[in-house]
Amino acid sequence: MIFNSEVRIKILALLYGMEYCEFSYLREKLKVSPGNLEHHLKILEKEGLVIIKKAITKKGIRTVVKITEKGKEEFKKFLGEILNLTNLEREDK
Amino acid sequence: MIFNSEVRIKILALLYGMEYCEFSYLREKLKVSPGNLEHHLKILEKEGLVIIKKAITKKGIRTVVKITEKGKEEFKKFLGEILNLTNLEREDK
Repeated sequence: MIFNSEVRIKILALLYGMEYCEFSYLREKLKVSPGNLEHHLKILEKEGLVIIKKAITKKGIRTVVKITEKGKEEFKKFLGEILNLTNLEREDK
Repeated sequence: MIFNSEVRIKILALLYGMEYCEFSYLREKLKVSPGNLEHHLKILEKEGLVIIKKAITKKGIRTVVKITEKGKEEFKKFLGEILNLTNLEREDK
């Protein structure tokens, strides 16, 4: 169910590399509306794949999103399956 | 819309590497029911990403699924975006 959404896949991909980032950065990179992003982040949080918290930054209080170990594992497994499928060979090739 | 489905992503991933394969092979590799696979193949066909046809094989008439050039391009672009996102670096890292 988690990977039945291009936006959720891209959120996990970005966080997989960065560990954590600000809500606004996710919005900018993924070009999604705040409401849409919030909707998908809530689903990921409910599944234990990300943590959403308020943080004090140089620019004031910001919403920060961090990927969990479970989130990294699930994304790594998903991406691995996709890459493995692209490598399958037909017997008659 | 196309990539809002893990099954559709995996169908395109498998066909990206193999070019074409039998319906039964897709079912076996992706572990999906015939009805579910047919549903997703119809969506991909409607978007011009795959072609579904009957073929005469050594084992009799079989349903064969082939990826189109558009299908390859769309999947390549999607996978590229995902891999690029995983490589983004935080400025403070």
